[in-house]
Amino acid sequence: MLYEGKAKQIFETEDPNEIIIHYKDDATAGNGAKKGTIENKGILNNKITVMIYRHLEEQGIKTHLIRMLNERDQLCRKVTILPLEVIVRNVIAGSAAARFQLKEGTEIRCPIIELCWKDDALGDPLINDFHAIALNLATREELDEIYAMTEKINTILIAMWKEMGIRLIDFKIEFGKTAEGELLLADEISPDTCRLWDAKTNEKLDKDRFRRDLGQIEEAYQEIFSRLEKKEA
Amino acid sequence: MLYEGKAKQIFETEDPNEIIIHYKDDATAGNGAKKGTIENKGILNNKITVMIYRHLEEQGIKTHLIRMLNERDQLCRKVTILPLEVIVRNVIAGSAAARFQLKEGTEIRCPIIELCWKDDALGDPLINDFHAIALNLATREELDEIYAMTEKINTILIAMWKEMGIRLIDFKIEFGKTAEGELLLADEISPDTCRLWDAKTNEKLDKDRFRRDLGQIEEAYQEIFSRLEKKEA
Repeated sequence: MLYEGKAKQIFETEDPNEIIIHYKDDATAGNGAKKGTIENKGILNNKITVMIYRHLEEQGIKTHLIRMLNERDQLCRKVTILPLEVIVRNVIAGSAAARFQLKEGTEIRCPIIELCWKDDALGDPLINDFHAIALNLATREELDEIYAMTEKINTILIAMWKEMGIRLIDFKIEFGKTAEGELLLADEISPDTCRLWDAKTNEKLDKDRFRRDLGQIEEAYQEIFSRLEKKEA
Repeated sequence: MLYEGKAKQIFETEDPNEIIIHYKDDATAGNGAKKGTIENKGILNNKITVMIYRHLEEQGIKTHLIRMLNERDQLCRKVTILPLEVIVRNVIAGSAAARFQLKEGTEIRCPIIELCWKDDALGDPLINDFHAIALNLATREELDEIYAMTEKINTILIAMWKEMGIRLIDFKIEFGKTAEGELLLADEISPDTCRLWDAKTNEKLDKDRFRRDLGQIEEAYQEIFSRLEKKEA
C-alpha cells in the first residue's frame, strides 16, 4: 500500500507507472470530525467514477483511469497529485453559503472555480492563483491548463447530469501529473465529491445526506448509480 | 457627514463631485474587536497619505486626492468605493502567516495579491476573481484594471520605502469609481494600512504595534512621517 486516505487506499502494481485505487465504505465529513460507514459506498463510487470518467474521456478529457478491475478496485496511471482541491460551484451551497451568508440554492451569474490548498493541518484553506504560484503549489501554466480543463469538465458534467434529471450544484476535482509531465484528471467523481440535487424535487442525492444526518444515504448513492446505468443502457 | 468609518469621517461639500475626508485618532483592530486611540494618528496618516499619493500621481497612478485642506482633512474626488479590499503581500506576515502556518517574514517567489469582500458582517472574507464577478462585486474589466494598477503601485511603493530604509511587507488599498466611470485609487495609505519594517532591524513601524501591544505606537507613526518628510526635503 502506498497511501491510505479517508475513503480510498492506493496500492502499487508491478508496473511503476500504474496503481490500484481501492474504494472503501468509510465516510468522513468536516475534515475528519465526523466518521461513519456508508454500506456499499465503495462499490457504488468506484462504478460511478468509472462511468463518469469514461464519459469525460469520450469528450476529450484526459484522466488517470485505465480500467475497472473489480467492484472496489480500479487501475490508474500513477500521477503526482497537485496539492490543490479544485471546486466548481454552479449554485451557492455548503461552505460558500456559510462564508457569504447566502441561502443554499442561490443562483449566480457564472460558475465559481475555487482553489483550496490540499492540506489537512491547514484545513484546506481557500487560496488564489497568486498564493498557488508564490507558495510553489503550481505554476501559471499548470493553473491555466487546470482552469481550461475544469471549465470543459463542468460543461460536460452539467449536461450529463441534466439528462438524468439531476442538477450539478457543485463538485470537487483533483489533478495529477505523470512522470512525463502530462496533466490528468485524477481522484474520484461521485456523490462523495459532488452536490447533486434532483431536478424536480431538489432532493439531495449526495454526501450531504451523511454530513447533515438526512437519512437514506445508501439509497441516494444507489439512485445516482441507477440513473447513470440507465443512461448508459 | 456622509459616512463614518473606524478611522475616518467623510463629509460632503458644495460640489457634488468632491468630498472631505477627516482623519481621526481612533484605532481598531480585529474587525473592531479591539479599540483605542493613537495620539495624532489622524494628523500623521493624513499627511503620510497625501505625500504617498502625490508620489504615486507623479508616477502615473490616478487617485481620488485633490489636495490637503488642513492637518486632518483632505479634499478628494467623490467615488463609489468598490466593495473589495486589495491586499498586496511581498513577504508573509499577519493573517497569511496564521492561515498558512508560515513564519512571519517568510520570503515568497512573487508578490501575492488578495481580494477580500469588504463586508464587516462577513468578516471581509478572502475571495477570488470568480467570486467577485459571480457575486456582482466587480467586472472582469475592473479586476484587470485593478490588478494592473496594483502591481504598478506595489513596484513604486517598494522602491519608495526602500529609499527610506523600510521594507514594504504588505499593504491594503481600495479603489473607487467616479460618476464618469473612471477607476481611481482611493482610501488611505499609511501605517494603518501597511506593514512597514525597518530594513536594518526589522522593527515594526506600523499598526501591528497597536494590534499586538508592542508599545511606542505614536513614535512608529512619527518615524514613518519623519522619514517621508526627509525624503521630500
